Amino acid sequence: MLEPQIELHPSERLDDLLTHDLHIIQSPEVFSFSMDAVLLARFAHIPMRGRVLDLCSGNGVIPLLMSTRTKASIDAVELQPRLADMARRSIELNGLQDRLTVYEGDLRTFHLSSGYGVYDAVTVNPPYMPAHTGDANANSHYAIARHEIHCTLEDVVTACARLVKSGGKVAMVHRPTRLIEIITYMKQVKLEPKRIRFVHPYQGSESNMVLIEAMRDAKPEVKILQPLIVYKENKQYHDELMEIYYGSANVGKKEVGE
Amino acid sequence: MLEPQIELHPSERLDDLLTHDLHIIQSPEVFSFSMDAVLLARFAHIPMRGRVLDLCSGNGVIPLLMSTRTKASIDAVELQPRLADMARRSIELNGLQDRLTVYEGDLRTFHLSSGYGVYDAVTVNPPYMPAHTGDANANSHYAIARHEIHCTLEDVVTACARLVKSGGKVAMVHRPTRLIEIITYMKQVKLEPKRIRFVHPYQGSESNMVLIEAMRDAKPEVKILQPLIVYKENKQYHDELMEIYYGSANVGKKEVGE
Repeated sequence: MLEPQIELHPSERLDDLLTHDLHIIQSPEVFSFSMDAVLLARFAHIPMRGRVLDLCSGNGVIPLLMSTRTKASIDAVELQPRLADMARRSIELNGLQDRLTVYEGDLRTFHLSSGYGVYDAVTVNPPYMPAHTGDANANSHYAIARHEIHCTLEDVVTACARLVKSGGKVAMVHRPTRLIEIITYMKQVKLEPKRIRFVHPYQGSESNMVLIEAMRDAKPEVKILQPLIVYKENKQYHDELMEIYYGSANVGKKEVGE
Repeated sequence: MLEPQIELHPSERLDDLLTHDLHIIQSPEVFSFSMDAVLLARFAHIPMRGRVLDLCSGNGVIPLLMSTRTKASIDAVELQPRLADMARRSIELNGLQDRLTVYEGDLRTFHLSSGYGVYDAVTVNPPYMPAHTGDANANSHYAIARHEIHCTLEDVVTACARLVKSGGKVAMVHRPTRLIEIITYMKQVKLEPKRIRFVHPYQGSESNMVLIEAMRDAKPEVKILQPLIVYKENKQYHDELMEIYYGSANVGKKEVGE
């Protein structure tokens, strides 16, 4: 299935996404995708047709995974040239360039070229940590992916609200410690949270990840879905995680949010 | 332990609170306490000394249960004369009248007599449903307890913020469908949500109850605690619920939020 003309740069490797024979270019020199992105790609309600957008797209894992569940065209925005280039090459090697498009650019100004309110659904896995926290000496590719250096949480939420249609959906993954901020910013820009799912590493532990989906201009009423527990007591993945990661036969039939 | 001079009115019965030999007067003609109140009484952080307040107190179950965990004085506010009277008699028959005081009154104006910012902790199990929903022909005692007839959610949150000290805690139980409203109203009055626990009837079902604790004037950062699952698959109570309801030997040593 792979198109042989795609060039891998030094340090890059090809990883198997374990579903629909998809592969993705990754490199230890830049931020690789994590469970957060995989869960978001499954959690988000995405329309079968229309236009979907992924912000802070990194190496494009979310558009690649979502492509198996929809025939919509999927745009991706990524600020870092190196990651945007990796995402483009991954899309080409999977033969998805007719439906998936990567824009190298800043989510704060993307509406100037795309227009306002043009997407049916928007997904985003933004940097989790404020700019001033953590290790300032870290590799800058990692720092930009993890810290709010080039966009704050408020910038991200505001961009989602600008770009999605009225009645369209915005799905985000983030740290639960910042839930109140996320909700506050969403309410400011008429994104009404409608579905929230908390991810807990173990049954008896606090949540360390939140999946949240809002609808533009909707009425207030939110569902808190069943908790998603990652590990059993024996440190094995719970069945739902096994199915999400390895149950390729079922991928596309079920969503994390159902 | 019971003081014999407390009179039971027609329709009333004496129920065992299953801990510390506490009893409570209930009547099928008015709203009886539910699991929600029991869970809130255990979830709330309450100081060992100082002043605690329970709003929408009904027949006083939350002050009675909290009295086993603190030596603080506990005030209760209840609008309905019949429920306030039942609460007063329950307090007397448990011999707690030195520490527990019931005020028959309106939470919207209670600060005019109590003063602003005088409580270390406030608890509230308010009506869950907007005024215009549900069965308008219901017994008015039930209707007032269940529907926002005499106070809206915003009134309740505003009253909590007025009455609690800066740095003091406000704990509420409510329906998760209204989480976004609760958070929005809290943020408006400088109540910062700090701990949230979702209650799910079964492991695989949506949440139908939320316990939320905010601190007045705190910095934003919230913890989502481990989910509280009520029933096992065989419809038996989960161990944690069994311990909360029947583990009287341990009551007072553990909280729902830990």
